[in-house]
Amino acid sequence: MARPTPLSGFPEWLPDGRIVEQHVLDVLRRTFELHGFAGIETRAVEPLDQLLRKGETSKEVYVLSRLQEDPDSPDRGGRLGLHFDLTVPFARYVLENAGHLAFPFRRYQIQKVWRGERPQDGRFREFVQADVDVVAAGDLPYHFEVELPLVMAEALGTLREVGLPPVRILVNNRKVAEGFYRGLGLTDVEGVLRGIDKLDKIGGPAVAALLIEETGATPEQAQACLDLAAVSGADESVVDAVREVAARNGADHPLLEEGLAELGALVRAAALRAPGVVVADLKIARGLDYYTGSVYETVLVGHEQLGSICSGGRYDTLASDGSTTYPGVGLSIGVSRLVSRLLGAGLVRATRSVPSAVLVAVTSEDDRPRSESVAAALRARGIPVEVAPSAAKFGKQIRHADRRGIPFVWFLSDGGEEADQVKDIRSGEQVPADAATWAPPHEDLWPRVVPAGS
Amino acid sequence: MARPTPLSGFPEWLPDGRIVEQHVLDVLRRTFELHGFAGIETRAVEPLDQLLRKGETSKEVYVLSRLQEDPDSPDRGGRLGLHFDLTVPFARYVLENAGHLAFPFRRYQIQKVWRGERPQDGRFREFVQADVDVVAAGDLPYHFEVELPLVMAEALGTLREVGLPPVRILVNNRKVAEGFYRGLGLTDVEGVLRGIDKLDKIGGPAVAALLIEETGATPEQAQACLDLAAVSGADESVVDAVREVAARNGADHPLLEEGLAELGALVRAAALRAPGVVVADLKIARGLDYYTGSVYETVLVGHEQLGSICSGGRYDTLASDGSTTYPGVGLSIGVSRLVSRLLGAGLVRATRSVPSAVLVAVTSEDDRPRSESVAAALRARGIPVEVAPSAAKFGKQIRHADRRGIPFVWFLSDGGEEADQVKDIRSGEQVPADAATWAPPHEDLWPRVVPAGS
Repeated sequence: MARPTPLSGFPEWLPDGRIVEQHVLDVLRRTFELHGFAGIETRAVEPLDQLLRKGETSKEVYVLSRLQEDPDSPDRGGRLGLHFDLTVPFARYVLENAGHLAFPFRRYQIQKVWRGERPQDGRFREFVQADVDVVAAGDLPYHFEVELPLVMAEALGTLREVGLPPVRILVNNRKVAEGFYRGLGLTDVEGVLRGIDKLDKIGGPAVAALLIEETGATPEQAQACLDLAAVSGADESVVDAVREVAARNGADHPLLEEGLAELGALVRAAALRAPGVVVADLKIARGLDYYTGSVYETVLVGHEQLGSICSGGRYDTLASDGSTTYPGVGLSIGVSRLVSRLLGAGLVRATRSVPSAVLVAVTSEDDRPRSESVAAALRARGIPVEVAPSAAKFGKQIRHADRRGIPFVWFLSDGGEEADQVKDIRSGEQVPADAATWAPPHEDLWPRVVPAGS
Repeated sequence: MARPTPLSGFPEWLPDGRIVEQHVLDVLRRTFELHGFAGIETRAVEPLDQLLRKGETSKEVYVLSRLQEDPDSPDRGGRLGLHFDLTVPFARYVLENAGHLAFPFRRYQIQKVWRGERPQDGRFREFVQADVDVVAAGDLPYHFEVELPLVMAEALGTLREVGLPPVRILVNNRKVAEGFYRGLGLTDVEGVLRGIDKLDKIGGPAVAALLIEETGATPEQAQACLDLAAVSGADESVVDAVREVAARNGADHPLLEEGLAELGALVRAAALRAPGVVVADLKIARGLDYYTGSVYETVLVGHEQLGSICSGGRYDTLASDGSTTYPGVGLSIGVSRLVSRLLGAGLVRATRSVPSAVLVAVTSEDDRPRSESVAAALRARGIPVEVAPSAAKFGKQIRHADRRGIPFVWFLSDGGEEADQVKDIRSGEQVPADAATWAPPHEDLWPRVVPAGS
């Protein structure tokens, strides 16, 4: 077999990169669990008709077939596809298990998803998402729309310790936009949102032309929409700024007021609990039409071109079984995008590429069981250890540890009164040691993830 | 949307079941890392021609296509399939990254795999495997064949604490079987192994008939093969028993002696380090033709009909790039099979279904920020907390906690000199508490996984 080459869009990491990814996942899991979110996993596949319900993502779905499918097989009809996000499967899981869940149901879910898109920098065909959502049966109070982005702010904030740049969570509220547009007299709300969503890509004049052409806006209405989109700010002054634009354009609508009250509450709480992280940005539109309240996007400061690394919003109908409607609010972190930038831009590193803190040297193959016993004694005390692969010369065994970044090599005594010895191969210092009591310094116990410069 | 029904062969767990699965995965990960195995993940897909190299599994592979595939797309030629195990992807990963890995390379890998087989009890179309392997560039010393099953014995032994039944790891050595068959004068070694592999299913007389018909064995040779397969034992006496069968049948071959030395070393080491767990069982054949030394299967004692929950072996050629050959040895735990039995047979349970140890009550919606502050203070000290979803009557808030199994409810003081109060809703005991110092008893901090009877 010739040396295989990577598949574009399907990222994989070397062992030290995986340590970084695993650390990110561990931090996310711990944060989510500290906030009382229960972890679930759903199967990777969903019936194709469910995946295509929203229509717009159809081109991205990977469809499955069994290689030697029996044409008479009963499951041939219900074709399966790989999920392209964790929201569609979660909605299905909620409906399927509603009788066994306590609502409001707080869940996190960290899994791979697949999209058959053209791969680009930070855009993959297979990638890991980490989602948190709260879903209610019936009513979902607004305060969850405040809580969820703050959970993500905490998780991403914790990762700053290892070298993640600061994040900025951009928030908006669909009610503000919709109320404003309706107050202006525009009725094609989705059309306007789609236009505004293109602002960063095509610029103001082109968006204005689009709004005039596609949504029937007058040049003045189009300009008013651009003026609204230009509003941003990290405190409640943003509410006044929106009111000012609305008053100037005669846009008055109860939905606008409702949305402003919510947006104001969010920036107020965020200023208190995650100062400097959450910014109201009225141009955040998010294409997906199922959002009905708050919407969120998140940029890495200094890496804005990477796109959003954590997005989501409120949906009044995450799922419905006819009798009960399940509204929800949630955000999703693009873990692979994040990790790929952390590694690709050289922002973080693992202190070593293997778990082992200690390599136990082997004096002779006959004596290997003694080395294994020392290793077992250290492991029983929570110290990660491997035993040298061969009874080579000690110099070679030390180089074996060195190549892996294993900081300590353990040498067995020749028997008699002598103690074993442990050598820190970085400093060369060697001291007598007892497997029942010796431990490496805490910072050497496990590989750590640290900012690349440190 | 009508209430969806589960897809046969694609298991999913409710939140408390996922806690059990997550605990199993955590124990495996920790054990593997204590033994110095580096974690990796590979993409879910491999080129179809790689997946089909071994031929025999072709019917099980799920093939991917993009829903709106461009017929001119360059990647149409290289069709992709979902991996059906973690060995094929690992071999590809080793070849692809050989220049960046230090050999012998110790890796663990815990991921989902997919097989389009007919679902049965304990046999799924999507399931989680947990693999450990050591792979070398060039030579792989035999001692790794002793080490790897003992790593699995330790991992599975640790799970006995939570209610996993004891396991029995059945080991054999291909060299013993091949040497014995060749010593008898039989040359179709693979044919004999395939026949012996059916012993449990079709019984001795049918296997004898098969050997006579398909491998050209005489009735005496067939009987000798059955006599060898009948040998088993947990100590070195098994080596003498094999020698006795060999002598009786005039089966003499250098490979037999080499295999017996290896098998003897394995049971000797296992008796010392995992007494009672490893049993030499000469009928273990394992169908796959790439095993060349030790082979392993593992049964749950009392659940033997479930089939093997942890299998593997030694392969002289895990991968090869023409100039270098990479031999390996490894085992794979069928995590989904294991967890499905733990849950389905009611062997284990989680002490609660949510992470939260504390529900902070909300006195009024205006006062929610104070409840959030208490929650943040507790979380900062590592205590999992959620805040009540609404400022309902306290009785209702307590019922909310009770339904989730959250043991403690926190009540804010009305202000002034009074302290907050925390109530253990199981005992009804309520005590003054300070969010800066109070902690739940250690056993209530996180949900635990315990034997179902406890």
